[in-house]
Amino acid sequence: MSARSDAVLAGDLRAAARLMRDLDDGVAGAREDLAALYPKTGGAFVVGVTGAPGVGKSTLVDQLVAVYRATGAKVGVVAVDPSSPFSGGALLGDRVRMQRHAVDDGVFIRSLATRGQLGGLSRSTAGAVAVLDAAGYPVIFVETVGVGQAEIDVARMADAVVVVTAPGLGDGVQALKAGLLEIADVLVVNKADRDGADLALRDLTTMLQIAARPAWPGEAARPAPPVVRAVASTGEGTPELVRALEAARARPAADRARRRRRQAAAQVLAIVSEVTQDTAARAIGGDENPGPFAPTIDAVAARALDPWSAAERLATAATERR
Amino acid sequence: MSARSDAVLAGDLRAAARLMRDLDDGVAGAREDLAALYPKTGGAFVVGVTGAPGVGKSTLVDQLVAVYRATGAKVGVVAVDPSSPFSGGALLGDRVRMQRHAVDDGVFIRSLATRGQLGGLSRSTAGAVAVLDAAGYPVIFVETVGVGQAEIDVARMADAVVVVTAPGLGDGVQALKAGLLEIADVLVVNKADRDGADLALRDLTTMLQIAARPAWPGEAARPAPPVVRAVASTGEGTPELVRALEAARARPAADRARRRRRQAAAQVLAIVSEVTQDTAARAIGGDENPGPFAPTIDAVAARALDPWSAAERLATAATERR
Repeated sequence: MSARSDAVLAGDLRAAARLMRDLDDGVAGAREDLAALYPKTGGAFVVGVTGAPGVGKSTLVDQLVAVYRATGAKVGVVAVDPSSPFSGGALLGDRVRMQRHAVDDGVFIRSLATRGQLGGLSRSTAGAVAVLDAAGYPVIFVETVGVGQAEIDVARMADAVVVVTAPGLGDGVQALKAGLLEIADVLVVNKADRDGADLALRDLTTMLQIAARPAWPGEAARPAPPVVRAVASTGEGTPELVRALEAARARPAADRARRRRRQAAAQVLAIVSEVTQDTAARAIGGDENPGPFAPTIDAVAARALDPWSAAERLATAATERR
Repeated sequence: MSARSDAVLAGDLRAAARLMRDLDDGVAGAREDLAALYPKTGGAFVVGVTGAPGVGKSTLVDQLVAVYRATGAKVGVVAVDPSSPFSGGALLGDRVRMQRHAVDDGVFIRSLATRGQLGGLSRSTAGAVAVLDAAGYPVIFVETVGVGQAEIDVARMADAVVVVTAPGLGDGVQALKAGLLEIADVLVVNKADRDGADLALRDLTTMLQIAARPAWPGEAARPAPPVVRAVASTGEGTPELVRALEAARARPAADRARRRRRQAAAQVLAIVSEVTQDTAARAIGGDENPGPFAPTIDAVAARALDPWSAAERLATAATERR
């Protein structure tokens, strides 16, 4: 156990923040520190909050943070923003809403951006959650924009998943594509004071009824998740959402163990994919700095080689190279 | 060159459709047939159409298909839907809108669904596009729900990328997260007859001005893409969009060659990631059918091993096992 691991376990915020950054940047020793911390994790209640852009996830998380802070618990927030060309990272607007918690020592907010083609979303998120867990944060929210597979992978790492939708996002069915229903423990119709809220709720309820909800492999079909009507900007619906979360947290021990195993599998798979893609991207290189596999890519571009054969060669070589 | 490859090259639709299905299902010989076809591809103009759920992408593609069909060209459409628990695949609603083309022999529509955790989106899309290209479709639209990295990867495979947004999707900035602006050759504000359209257009224009648009590595900053105001349901804006697409198609030969190389790299990388993840998922297995790596996952779930070390072991073993 390194001095830094000890500091994180003792709840040292600066050490925790530094470790998260070093993990993102691939600084030597950071992975080893995290591995040392890992056996001390697993105590936190990790809540994923996901949904399409613009449904009000940040405002909802802000309300949830206030509720859990009021119980005296320290609260961690990991906000995952897809890469933005504007800020090179997290968008300011989202975070501004969290400002009332920014001066609260008991709330740790970490914004993560995806790093373009090289991925890293799952690794960074898993790293930040593990560090906060080890540092003694009993409640951790992970907020993602949940339409893509990467975001679903991240949500799968949570102990409870809140899927947020809102009226006026095209039809409700569209807003809930992407397998989000499959992973939801609670559904929230936010902005429920808007026109179309009743319609959105009705659509959602119908969908839940007609949908043969696919369970995790080997699991019997679960009952439909509760649907909460909320107006995050006023706090309406927050108590109902907290109750639903606490019900999910109190699941039977056997369910909990199975879920933890699936979380582990999802996490490892996501990291495998990212690591392989990083290595492969380095092997290809860029226009200015071609890597050893650049000629293979040239052959594909010239249609002399098909991309599937190229991918096979690259996957093998990338792993051998690591 | 197999009999099937010959049939596809001769424009045999049944052979083409069968090859796409066999590629998806991993039927023996399909990959070889595709590899044989690959040198004959590269002639088609591939247009990616992407954007958040509910912005009206399908209706827009429907209009574009009508315009290109009117020139006599055969048109292919590959519609990528994230997996839905309702249909086990593509959602009916989207496709219904394309029905006016369903009876037109000159339009080939292929709906693809992602296959849950195992991925396959990039492979299936690339396969369908290559088959249509080889079968002599000079224009191919690839429609994706573009908020996740997988969808961005797919869009990167296109010769021109249309990013669609609409008023009322939360704030415009939110709707355009996820690096979509980076890859857009044309931006469309659809549903421009709705309240908030002027605001959405103004936001977008401001964003384009303030954004230091990141270029592809090694490329100088490009000028901002054109913004088209459209009402896809009436056809308003379609002529402007077609003009913008044709301008993108007519890019200089050097730019075109560079872009083809990047398409090849993006395609190969996406396939590498999918292949590795498939293999890794099989190694882990499910609750009922644990694979050789199940004990490693159990160790992670029990916090005896950290997920990063597990991923490293798995990535190495997964490749050796292939």
